[in-house]
Amino acid sequence: MEQEPLLMIPGPVPIPQRVRAAMTRQAINHRGPEFGAAYAETVQTLKTLFGTVNELYIISGSGSAGMEAGVANFARDKRIVSLVNGKFGDRFAKIGARYGTVTTLESEWGTPLDLAALERELEAGAEVVTMVHNETSAGIKNPAPEVGKLARKHDALFIMDGVTSIGGDDVRMDEWGVDIAVVGSQKCLAAPAGLAAIAVGDRAWDRISEKRPFYLDMAAYRKSGKGSPMETPYTPAVPLFLALHEACKMIEEEGVAARIARHRRMADAVRAAAKGWGVDLFPTLDEHHAYSNTATAMRIPDGVTDNDLRGTVKKFGIEIAGGQDHLKGKIFRIGTMGGVGAQEILATLAAVQFALRKSGFAAGDGVEAAAGVLLG
Amino acid sequence: MEQEPLLMIPGPVPIPQRVRAAMTRQAINHRGPEFGAAYAETVQTLKTLFGTVNELYIISGSGSAGMEAGVANFARDKRIVSLVNGKFGDRFAKIGARYGTVTTLESEWGTPLDLAALERELEAGAEVVTMVHNETSAGIKNPAPEVGKLARKHDALFIMDGVTSIGGDDVRMDEWGVDIAVVGSQKCLAAPAGLAAIAVGDRAWDRISEKRPFYLDMAAYRKSGKGSPMETPYTPAVPLFLALHEACKMIEEEGVAARIARHRRMADAVRAAAKGWGVDLFPTLDEHHAYSNTATAMRIPDGVTDNDLRGTVKKFGIEIAGGQDHLKGKIFRIGTMGGVGAQEILATLAAVQFALRKSGFAAGDGVEAAAGVLLG
Repeated sequence: MEQEPLLMIPGPVPIPQRVRAAMTRQAINHRGPEFGAAYAETVQTLKTLFGTVNELYIISGSGSAGMEAGVANFARDKRIVSLVNGKFGDRFAKIGARYGTVTTLESEWGTPLDLAALERELEAGAEVVTMVHNETSAGIKNPAPEVGKLARKHDALFIMDGVTSIGGDDVRMDEWGVDIAVVGSQKCLAAPAGLAAIAVGDRAWDRISEKRPFYLDMAAYRKSGKGSPMETPYTPAVPLFLALHEACKMIEEEGVAARIARHRRMADAVRAAAKGWGVDLFPTLDEHHAYSNTATAMRIPDGVTDNDLRGTVKKFGIEIAGGQDHLKGKIFRIGTMGGVGAQEILATLAAVQFALRKSGFAAGDGVEAAAGVLLG
Repeated sequence: MEQEPLLMIPGPVPIPQRVRAAMTRQAINHRGPEFGAAYAETVQTLKTLFGTVNELYIISGSGSAGMEAGVANFARDKRIVSLVNGKFGDRFAKIGARYGTVTTLESEWGTPLDLAALERELEAGAEVVTMVHNETSAGIKNPAPEVGKLARKHDALFIMDGVTSIGGDDVRMDEWGVDIAVVGSQKCLAAPAGLAAIAVGDRAWDRISEKRPFYLDMAAYRKSGKGSPMETPYTPAVPLFLALHEACKMIEEEGVAARIARHRRMADAVRAAAKGWGVDLFPTLDEHHAYSNTATAMRIPDGVTDNDLRGTVKKFGIEIAGGQDHLKGKIFRIGTMGGVGAQEILATLAAVQFALRKSGFAAGDGVEAAAGVLLG
């Protein structure tokens, strides 16, 4: 029997059967009360995960569409400072450049952001800060609370990419001073790819641009979202909304705190495995930065090739991720997001351990170390 | 037993079981060969339906996102003339106004477009024409071949909204001189809502704007689409792609000519029913315009209210559409799109006939007339 492949990449992640089944029902009218109620309930759960009481709307589009909505509506023709220490930070800077004047503060991928340089830019008049909270390309978690504090101090807007943290790690949008935050459906929420949720605070609404795109016009989302029933301005991807609604029900059943603890435990287990193997974690940290709890990046040991490592793992029906762009061949990454648990982690780590040893690397027993962590 | 509601509105339409089932499989990697092959096969079928050999890409977003992609990439900062005789023409003009300078040529909804005025605008230097091919808000089909000819004569680009015609009616993008055409997944293709396909001809590619949006950047779609495997630039709505792929397989099995003939026959049947009832069709035609084959708009007879009419029909589990905006309460509309056939048409027409009579309107036997048409 051929198994379905197990995706242990930093999203998309395996989708629980219940969530997939939610998509099979017949088309419903997206202007009717049933759709509106599902939308509204989903928004409530997401607000909890964002740590916000702000308005929150769902866009039929990828996480990048959500980031663009934040920039195009609230940073147009403004001075933007973009913090970059990985691929998605880089993408965020590129989105910014389509709409405003961007100063990029780039650190080497996987190394700490330069908060002192950020403060200088804010003192020099930057109006918007963009940052990726959890940079899966490098396995690093960036200091949202510190950046939020600096942005507030200088009256700048803070737009945060929470695509791979919200729902899997502790996020406190309001407490941290984040003005706009975005999550993608296919990461920690364990729903299919294709939706982005965006929360927008009052400071951002007060500064919304007169010139806005059409499909990503947040004023239109706001108007339709405040109707009864709750609606989207344009035809939504109905099956994906129904799937995300079901995924949110599962999140409520698990409990948000338990879900975040589970994600942290899974990442701890992977890090324990790396230590057991004698494989280096990729990021370089300082007191403001931490390892990601939803994607762990490790250096590929000398003498092992990316192809051999991931190719062997794939023979077990398990996909892990390589490095992106200039990190290709240098690192490998394991996602610990969504609904996965001990079974998937153990299988993946056992496959990686086998692959490392097969390639001639004398890996210690990381699986044993991880198993201990998983049992707490 | 409660039945699932039957959507006989001008989209979304009922989705065949096979298409819905295609969404239930586990997440697959959208950068892998399996996804790429499904994307490429889907594109091939869509090109046939568009009547084009042009490049065609699929956007994870609604039909409106597709229209905006056309305008934002190819009509930015240009002089646009927008033909409007219904709600979607009006929306298209609004999208145009976000990016260029729009002259709107508005006819009363459901009445013919003013082709003489269009020619005057083109002579005066308009660079882009936008038109909705099939205006479901009013049940009218607009003259794409004539507009294409005029646009070519004056070297303007012609962007056509084929959201509700492509896949259900005869469309010949290349023969008609359409430079950019767009379809939505949830209309004649009988797939779930959430995807738009856009075909772009060489004349348009040659004029692509330097300034482009990010998520809807057609140059990015082109670059990823030409890769091997075929990819999308940002994470696609994977389940919707798999569903559209299955829907396209069903279209190939039916055959394109048979599918278009079926749509025409269904619309003929609805029009025959209207005649049998003594209910007026809404559009006013001239020699260039025709009744829509995918949505039929009829006037609500005097003495019948929209609420009573559609409310009674809904008691049978069938949803038909009312009028939009200023046509609310004045017309009702029946969609004949996608996979529906004689069973759904007969049920719907029988319910409408019952509702008309219940409201005191002495409707003739439209159902009998329609049944005759359905059997050919």
